[in-house]
Amino acid sequence: MLFSELFIPPALRDAVSERAWIGSMLEAEAALAQAEARVGVIPSSAAEQIAAHCWIEQIDQAAIVVEARRVGNPVEPLARALRSVVPDESARYVHFGATSQDILDTASMLIARNALTIIERDLASLAGRLAELADEHRATLMVSRTLLQHALPITFGLKAAQWLVGVTRARMGLHRLHTECLAAQLGGAAGTLAALGDAGTAVVSEYARMLGLAEPQLPWHTERSRLLEIGAALGPAAGAVDKIALDLALLAQTEVQEVAEGGAEPHGGSSTMPHKRNPVGSVLARACAREAQPNIDLLLRSMGQEHERAAGAWHAEWQALTAALAFTGGAVSWLVEVMTDLEVFPDRMRENFDMTQGLVMTERVTFLLAERMDRGIAHEMIRAASGRAAEEGSSLKTVLMSDHQVRRHLSAEEIDLALDPTTYLGSTRAFIERALALHRQAERTGSAS
Amino acid sequence: MLFSELFIPPALRDAVSERAWIGSMLEAEAALAQAEARVGVIPSSAAEQIAAHCWIEQIDQAAIVVEARRVGNPVEPLARALRSVVPDESARYVHFGATSQDILDTASMLIARNALTIIERDLASLAGRLAELADEHRATLMVSRTLLQHALPITFGLKAAQWLVGVTRARMGLHRLHTECLAAQLGGAAGTLAALGDAGTAVVSEYARMLGLAEPQLPWHTERSRLLEIGAALGPAAGAVDKIALDLALLAQTEVQEVAEGGAEPHGGSSTMPHKRNPVGSVLARACAREAQPNIDLLLRSMGQEHERAAGAWHAEWQALTAALAFTGGAVSWLVEVMTDLEVFPDRMRENFDMTQGLVMTERVTFLLAERMDRGIAHEMIRAASGRAAEEGSSLKTVLMSDHQVRRHLSAEEIDLALDPTTYLGSTRAFIERALALHRQAERTGSAS
Amino acid sequence: MLFSELFIPPALRDAVSERAWIGSMLEAEAALAQAEARVGVIPSSAAEQIAAHCWIEQIDQAAIVVEARRVGNPVEPLARALRSVVPDESARYVHFGATSQDILDTASMLIARNALTIIERDLASLAGRLAELADEHRATLMVSRTLLQHALPITFGLKAAQWLVGVTRARMGLHRLHTECLAAQLGGAAGTLAALGDAGTAVVSEYARMLGLAEPQLPWHTERSRLLEIGAALGPAAGAVDKIALDLALLAQTEVQEVAEGGAEPHGGSSTMPHKRNPVGSVLARACAREAQPNIDLLLRSMGQEHERAAGAWHAEWQALTAALAFTGGAVSWLVEVMTDLEVFPDRMRENFDMTQGLVMTERVTFLLAERMDRGIAHEMIRAASGRAAEEGSSLKTVLMSDHQVRRHLSAEEIDLALDPTTYLGSTRAFIERALALHRQAERTGSAS
Amino acid sequence: MLFSELFIPPALRDAVSERAWIGSMLEAEAALAQAEARVGVIPSSAAEQIAAHCWIEQIDQAAIVVEARRVGNPVEPLARALRSVVPDESARYVHFGATSQDILDTASMLIARNALTIIERDLASLAGRLAELADEHRATLMVSRTLLQHALPITFGLKAAQWLVGVTRARMGLHRLHTECLAAQLGGAAGTLAALGDAGTAVVSEYARMLGLAEPQLPWHTERSRLLEIGAALGPAAGAVDKIALDLALLAQTEVQEVAEGGAEPHGGSSTMPHKRNPVGSVLARACAREAQPNIDLLLRSMGQEHERAAGAWHAEWQALTAALAFTGGAVSWLVEVMTDLEVFPDRMRENFDMTQGLVMTERVTFLLAERMDRGIAHEMIRAASGRAAEEGSSLKTVLMSDHQVRRHLSAEEIDLALDPTTYLGSTRAFIERALALHRQAERTGSAS
Repeated sequence: MLFSELFIPPALRDAVSERAWIGSMLEAEAALAQAEARVGVIPSSAAEQIAAHCWIEQIDQAAIVVEARRVGNPVEPLARALRSVVPDESARYVHFGATSQDILDTASMLIARNALTIIERDLASLAGRLAELADEHRATLMVSRTLLQHALPITFGLKAAQWLVGVTRARMGLHRLHTECLAAQLGGAAGTLAALGDAGTAVVSEYARMLGLAEPQLPWHTERSRLLEIGAALGPAAGAVDKIALDLALLAQTEVQEVAEGGAEPHGGSSTMPHKRNPVGSVLARACAREAQPNIDLLLRSMGQEHERAAGAWHAEWQALTAALAFTGGAVSWLVEVMTDLEVFPDRMRENFDMTQGLVMTERVTFLLAERMDRGIAHEMIRAASGRAAEEGSSLKTVLMSDHQVRRHLSAEEIDLALDPTTYLGSTRAFIERALALHRQAERTGSAS
Repeated sequence: MLFSELFIPPALRDAVSERAWIGSMLEAEAALAQAEARVGVIPSSAAEQIAAHCWIEQIDQAAIVVEARRVGNPVEPLARALRSVVPDESARYVHFGATSQDILDTASMLIARNALTIIERDLASLAGRLAELADEHRATLMVSRTLLQHALPITFGLKAAQWLVGVTRARMGLHRLHTECLAAQLGGAAGTLAALGDAGTAVVSEYARMLGLAEPQLPWHTERSRLLEIGAALGPAAGAVDKIALDLALLAQTEVQEVAEGGAEPHGGSSTMPHKRNPVGSVLARACAREAQPNIDLLLRSMGQEHERAAGAWHAEWQALTAALAFTGGAVSWLVEVMTDLEVFPDRMRENFDMTQGLVMTERVTFLLAERMDRGIAHEMIRAASGRAAEEGSSLKTVLMSDHQVRRHLSAEEIDLALDPTTYLGSTRAFIERALALHRQAERTGSAS
Repeated sequence: MLFSELFIPPALRDAVSERAWIGSMLEAEAALAQAEARVGVIPSSAAEQIAAHCWIEQIDQAAIVVEARRVGNPVEPLARALRSVVPDESARYVHFGATSQDILDTASMLIARNALTIIERDLASLAGRLAELADEHRATLMVSRTLLQHALPITFGLKAAQWLVGVTRARMGLHRLHTECLAAQLGGAAGTLAALGDAGTAVVSEYARMLGLAEPQLPWHTERSRLLEIGAALGPAAGAVDKIALDLALLAQTEVQEVAEGGAEPHGGSSTMPHKRNPVGSVLARACAREAQPNIDLLLRSMGQEHERAAGAWHAEWQALTAALAFTGGAVSWLVEVMTDLEVFPDRMRENFDMTQGLVMTERVTFLLAERMDRGIAHEMIRAASGRAAEEGSSLKTVLMSDHQVRRHLSAEEIDLALDPTTYLGSTRAFIERALALHRQAERTGSAS
Repeated sequence: MLFSELFIPPALRDAVSERAWIGSMLEAEAALAQAEARVGVIPSSAAEQIAAHCWIEQIDQAAIVVEARRVGNPVEPLARALRSVVPDESARYVHFGATSQDILDTASMLIARNALTIIERDLASLAGRLAELADEHRATLMVSRTLLQHALPITFGLKAAQWLVGVTRARMGLHRLHTECLAAQLGGAAGTLAALGDAGTAVVSEYARMLGLAEPQLPWHTERSRLLEIGAALGPAAGAVDKIALDLALLAQTEVQEVAEGGAEPHGGSSTMPHKRNPVGSVLARACAREAQPNIDLLLRSMGQEHERAAGAWHAEWQALTAALAFTGGAVSWLVEVMTDLEVFPDRMRENFDMTQGLVMTERVTFLLAERMDRGIAHEMIRAASGRAAEEGSSLKTVLMSDHQVRRHLSAEEIDLALDPTTYLGSTRAFIERALALHRQAERTGSAS
């Protein structure tokens, strides 16, 4: 990937690298030999010798990929290379009974597992930070914005709680993959494991166990729902980041300034525009989420594969999976970095809330008035008062207090109370509690795994 | 949708129609009033009067959608229309405390539930038919094809079992949506349910219960993972159909003719080309699957929504969800029709298998020989024999029998046995059993719901 | 399409309706008969009789689409219906020598042409309005925003000019389609026009001429670049709208308020939140653009079609083309509506510009100072001054004027001038002129066509 | 990209590598300094010194990308690195008046130009080979296939001509990019070139000229139709390959065997399945085309960018452009390799044609008969005859010759002639000529550039 250091964190870059892929293929070859030995299909000594040579250092990676051009995948040259280093008597047991896709698909699941572990760890950090914000800012008043226009009061804690729910649901979705989706692949050339005679299912079972992957009911050479499920679980992760980073970039606008990306040396400083607090992390998180999507999309369209081995659609999955994992992880990682040092400005939130001088509270006053008179007339009265307030640049309170018609129905105290946003937050606290409870539940599930 | 009668079955067309959407919105409004009455937020009499008027027949659909242009969604005009028919004293309780998105999102979940019920029923039929094929054709020999080239023997039962696994996994994924994903939406203008005071969460709970939808932890106005999850679950359904229909179209090729779409009056007959057995159903199933994908993709990219109500991304979901449901269902429905009358030609499968005159069995002979001599030399001998067979147009058996070098290691009986495909099917039967077991498990889960 | 009246203007809805599709197929059948008569392939009297019956009123639309399920497309039943109403002696010349795809593809090009005409007319209105804004607001100062942070001064005229360039390029792209891309289709069952003997190319030529479509070099049954080109030209149209509508929604934010959607009765008013000026038109324009994209994407992936007639990919194009045209046109139409009544608030633009109290002019002061002293030190001095200004809440001017170090290098007049944004607009005017010139060029090209 | 040596040819890998990107940025910085010197904005000596240091060898690539994390793009650290190596008196003129996006966008256009040059060269080879096939196989009879079923006769030359048209149209589309789409970017921080005073447009003009790129009317920081146009032109290239490779894979099926991928050592040989002639090149070409599409799609959705610099969408373009170029080029390159050694089997084409024993000629016999009797009865007679032929396994000819009713209208000679496919090819030759003419025209246009 271009400029990968800019987008993807180092551990994840390593986890999805070409080296990691070839290493995972070797891991699959080693497990295959060992599983076959345990079931009695090949000699134990052969399995030991094969496993002993399944190290990436023994393999000329570049040569293998170039060789791959001849047969269309890197497994055949890898198996050949392995045979050439394994002692003669064991060489014939290398890759025994397997087809290239068995090894490559199994490697893809190992890659996915390792990358997911990193992504899930980062999502856990993100969730932890969001839970802190939700807790800390339970009562920090801010204005909600619908279609980018000021609406009713909320608290920043509720916004953080909403973000938290998105992240938590994404975590739960990724967590579910480990149980059943990430499965070993072993079927032989036609998905029958013909070369293993009666021992096929026993070998698959042992092979999956050794690799720590699920045992599939059947080989899934052209039943690709697993890839789709991985994509489908990465989608909400990238999407949750996209939503949060979008909100942050909007909140960080010069006109809004309710948050800023922080840190010792703030990101995004510009020498010639020192006032700028570019939300660099949020911007890169969004870029990563955007990059992840088309790759996820490709995984989601990958089920139409011909007969027992696809003529192209399979080969296109490899890079799509790699990029979907890398960019989703990049998105999460950038957002963790942003959240760690996020500066939140409650005073500014309150200032922005007051910008419309009480007009956002109109709903409440209208409801109150409508309880005491004809609803239509109540609406009309408040609409007129609001118009006057906007026109004169006065606050809604000033206008209401001096409006005789209104005052016939509402006392000064009632107007005061009706315009107090802190008492018009409905279920805000309850919702924050629920988000935190869901988060704690996810924490327990996660740590139990 | 253009030519919708061609692609989408009638029940599903109705289930996702504009009329159904507006009907579902009315259902949500009715449930809202009733839930609020039960919790004591509005008078029971008002709830009854409102519910009594929530019928599609009372509403001028077209007027509502045209009116929607003024405010950007059809709920506001719908609520207004409802208020104009409900008795005056109850009119003020119509849509009480809700925001337009509450009603529209809830309607979208009702639409999804109803459409999914139809799709799942069709998938169940499809699975049933595939299970029959897997069972019936357990031993029907055919050739496997990798990269569209003949590979080792399989049975048609195994192919049907593979298809069955794809369909079954898709069913399981759709089934999971009902438990938690399909949730009611209720949050009010800012997601705080401010207008409901302390009663917010109680109302949501009752509202969800009445609609038979899950109760969400929080309003999900801009936490859109639910839409994504629906898309993600439709993906494998459309994809499983795509895979099967692709295989069928390939198997039905004039040169292959292992299956044909049947029926009293065969589909796809052509008056000027009477020999054609156009796989019309498979073709339309693939077209539907292809149409479903971009709509699913849009759902999967819909999480980046601004603050508390999105400025566009939300509105784009409505048609995407509708089309994703309709085309996925169309794909499934067409394939059910195909499968009901599918003609399978076991003799032709055997003929095609024999086309390479035993060459597909080379792997087995090579393995056998390699057990008795140097692996490299064994490979070379068989390669030469195969080449000779291809060149002379003889069968591999003829060549091997007359090859002195080979005969020094293998008896005639051994050659005979090695070339018998029916004894080189490995775990085929076991895999078929597993697919059928998975199917039965899905049947039980499905019927339990 | 769901809620189509909300998204798509009436003329465009008609132009891409099922009725229009069937009407266009009839137009193609009529032109085919007439072209064949002119070339002498069929009798003139037959052509006249056929053409006389090619009216949508004579056809039972619904029956045709239902019938289409048997053969997989609506043309065969349409031709059959036509034969049943045409006098016997001419009936055999209906659809003579053509294949279903000839008629359907030709219809798709007629549909595209008619829809494009509407879209182009709306884009011309949009461009006209943007040109007015660019002209009128040449000197209306506003702040530019990069990564949503205030940057250097621009004018609103420049912003409108940038929008205008996007729209103009989109117009040029759409205009190019008419010349060569929108072509008739005629090839017969195998793309050879075998049934027309030697007269094939002559008939195609006449057929295309009569329909006002380009004559293709070859039939394009499975060479689908034309569909892709239509999608590729719709992309920038939808995209240009997306960009403008996004900017408008951001400019209309409560905190920014530099523009508002207007009109006699403002869009998006809310009875309970009277201060809201919801940018409804921009929001719906964005929703339409978002909906157009996956359909465009499907057109762009449609080239992989099998042999001489695709087994699914062709059938999926119909709805994709329809929806791509409808939603692109919906996006443009909504933006025209917005632009017609857009309110622009220059005072507010200036207020927002002044929000950072001169800090956005730092670049210029730094450059000026750097000419007179060491660049690094100059940078450091201005950085310090800016910091002080931000901290003290003073303007940059106040701080600079009282900074002895700065004053040693810059006079009061120089500081004044350096902080004047109206003299730091670089090529703004020149760029506006260029955009207007490009617009006028597009106007001439457009009207010449 | 994972396994990039497998998919992408070496020259193209280099052309889109990270090293090439950074080299192109340096090329832009050098051209900027030189253009500014020519226009008199900076001293000539400074420009010379800057240009002299703009070499990739002088830059620590890895450090720059890591540094990029601080500001969100690699240009700022690159400019800083450049300043640190350029002599002090000239350092202040490095990157003068430019913004990071100016350099990065310009580099993207240089990258695109260089990659396109390679892709276009390969497409020219491909077109040349297809033209040879069209010419050579003008009369090589084969069957056409619609919905994968045998239809009327065509020639392999016509199929190659159809492929050629797709490739030629793709070439023309790519060629058009050079004239106007591939443009330099220069606008400064706000797109006004404020720092260049009155010299802005003169500098842009000179800068573009030096780089050999088009001069844009306006900076296009957030008017991204150029990226979309590149994507839109790559689409038909990837798509044309996809179509051809799909046809080849189908033609190479074991049951069809009308073509095979060749070469000294055939691709795709399998040691254990020697009969296999895996269409490895076609498969990888399809995989590349599939990989290109989502990246093209991302470019096509990239127009919605905020204000004067996007908060994420811009950053996501870099990898998308790189991958779209690389995979499209990989697809073309693989197909060139396939075509160079493609083996075509005319005898087998004839055998497959004869498979239905004349039934594909039914249309012609029906037409002939219908001229002499009632059309409906003629149809019925031939339908019956065809049915008999299929049932009895006889040829249509045998059945027709012995059918008294038919023989009353048609002589033996007439039947013979009607069943001769070589005289039922319609405009096949004319179409081949047209495709070749279009190809020659593209060759002339291409070589003129």
